[in-house]
Amino acid sequence: MKPGRMKPGPEFDRIRAFIAAVRTEAASVEIPPGDDAAVIRWPSDESVVLSSDAFVEGVHFKRAWLRWEAVGYRATAAALSDLAAMAARPAGVLVSLMVPPETEESMLVALGEGVGECLRRHETGLLGGDLAHSPSAVAIDVCAVGASRRPIGRGGASEGDEIWLTGAVGGAAAAVQAWGRSMEPDPRARAAFERPTARIAEAIWLGEHADLTALIDLSDGLAGDARQIAAASEARLRIDLDAVPLAPPLSEYASRDAALGLALAGGEDYELLLCCEEGSLETVQAEFERRFEIGLTKVGVVEEGEGATWTSASGARVPADLDGFDHFAPGRTE
Amino acid sequence: MKPGRMKPGPEFDRIRAFIAAVRTEAASVEIPPGDDAAVIRWPSDESVVLSSDAFVEGVHFKRAWLRWEAVGYRATAAALSDLAAMAARPAGVLVSLMVPPETEESMLVALGEGVGECLRRHETGLLGGDLAHSPSAVAIDVCAVGASRRPIGRGGASEGDEIWLTGAVGGAAAAVQAWGRSMEPDPRARAAFERPTARIAEAIWLGEHADLTALIDLSDGLAGDARQIAAASEARLRIDLDAVPLAPPLSEYASRDAALGLALAGGEDYELLLCCEEGSLETVQAEFERRFEIGLTKVGVVEEGEGATWTSASGARVPADLDGFDHFAPGRTE
Repeated sequence: MKPGRMKPGPEFDRIRAFIAAVRTEAASVEIPPGDDAAVIRWPSDESVVLSSDAFVEGVHFKRAWLRWEAVGYRATAAALSDLAAMAARPAGVLVSLMVPPETEESMLVALGEGVGECLRRHETGLLGGDLAHSPSAVAIDVCAVGASRRPIGRGGASEGDEIWLTGAVGGAAAAVQAWGRSMEPDPRARAAFERPTARIAEAIWLGEHADLTALIDLSDGLAGDARQIAAASEARLRIDLDAVPLAPPLSEYASRDAALGLALAGGEDYELLLCCEEGSLETVQAEFERRFEIGLTKVGVVEEGEGATWTSASGARVPADLDGFDHFAPGRTE
Repeated sequence: MKPGRMKPGPEFDRIRAFIAAVRTEAASVEIPPGDDAAVIRWPSDESVVLSSDAFVEGVHFKRAWLRWEAVGYRATAAALSDLAAMAARPAGVLVSLMVPPETEESMLVALGEGVGECLRRHETGLLGGDLAHSPSAVAIDVCAVGASRRPIGRGGASEGDEIWLTGAVGGAAAAVQAWGRSMEPDPRARAAFERPTARIAEAIWLGEHADLTALIDLSDGLAGDARQIAAASEARLRIDLDAVPLAPPLSEYASRDAALGLALAGGEDYELLLCCEEGSLETVQAEFERRFEIGLTKVGVVEEGEGATWTSASGARVPADLDGFDHFAPGRTE
């Protein structure tokens, strides 16, 4: 995208450098970044889908863990994942950067390259944003804008529905756990944290090929996000622990309980958890797996009640502190 | 707006408390805050207008200056002002809050009350957002979403156009200057900083009643924002210093140069600077001033060239460092 003409000056040089590094084109844009606001021509039959997601140094990541390209990529993917969770296609993102005054342009360029890599991978572009000072920590707030004819919320699951999961879970949490222990993560765990895929194409395809009743992306972890669907749908999610697909690094853990803890409580996998009418996904499961090269696994059923409940024929146990797990708990990623 | 059903837990109690304090209804919302994303039904004949604006503790404000209600109000008004700058009507905002772990719920409620007060005043509502930890400083990033049939950018001014300004300028800068000197600001200056009006109704009315060619809101100051129109329009803005209306506290300054410095370089007034075809505003000026109870003043003309140039029959001088003024310069509000 060619930025609009902005006046000279160091602030605008930095903005120009960031936009140039992002190097994307968003479709249907009437007025590109650089004016007071971005303007998008909107198709008449689609709703506007909007979500914002903040990624903060010292809370969600540490400088020692990630290169700035990865920070930009990861922040963007997390915001786009909220569009996937509604089965919406992205129309673009606004990126608000808060960086310390001493920040060098090369760091903004690296951030922009990561943002752009993620946007291109998900076939969307930069719409606008803000560049502001921060006293010390770097923060990135990404507002994702999407379009959908039939957005899918969390609140439609009911008794008898099946529960399915894309991909495998726990990879990102394994990386955070390794960093917390001052170890270098397994490369697959690092990749899961740094370069998650927002399951946008997958969600749209599933919405077109099955009768989805509820859909969420796993940002807070399988256990927490299952409870979100349960609360919004006023139903209980019964999930078979033995069926939950563990991310590759976890399958090698000596302790299955430790692996399950990461798989259930660890957030930021950005896989999709969905409910659908009984029998509506089995017929397309194989085609989905071929097309997207990830698994699609039935993990449970919806029943009357509330919350999430966990079963295991093999005697696997849910971590004791799972119910108390909360994304907002201080020191989570420390 | 009634938040969607979210699961129990301290994170969600905080989000619920914030949403309850905001207490607004955005029109046309299909899925309210609490799901993965907000969904708005969009009118077929309007474009989507989007802007984000970050407001950071220690950079844009200090805790000692403002109550949290004022922080919430001010952050929201600044974002809405970007919609005014496009002559767009607001459809709602997303608010990303970054707060330290020890933040009490009462502080989030106060912030929410300020956000809600501003949203109601501008007849719009909360669409969604994010609540994240920050290591220490509070940051609020507001993404404003608007709709417009004919958005007005910065780039259409040409030779012979007139330049007009709503209201008066320098009030917010007078407050920041007083705080910087450890003095209590004049109450009118404090109000200008704390409770600016996003000139949305004014901009839409002007767009309907005159042939506007360029429009911007004064967030960086008259001098800087005039240069933005000049850069985007590839023209020069010639502004008569003697015509620039000074905010009430400034008119009492003993030093006219000091007052002019604040009026030209001080940002965050959120008045509108606009260019229009010659003669197209004079006939409606009186009606505008009656209707909106603020001034509408012709301050200059557009000519060939670039940048901004300043004239004064009375010998008023532009502050020497004005060209170097930059919002991103470190320590600006210190």
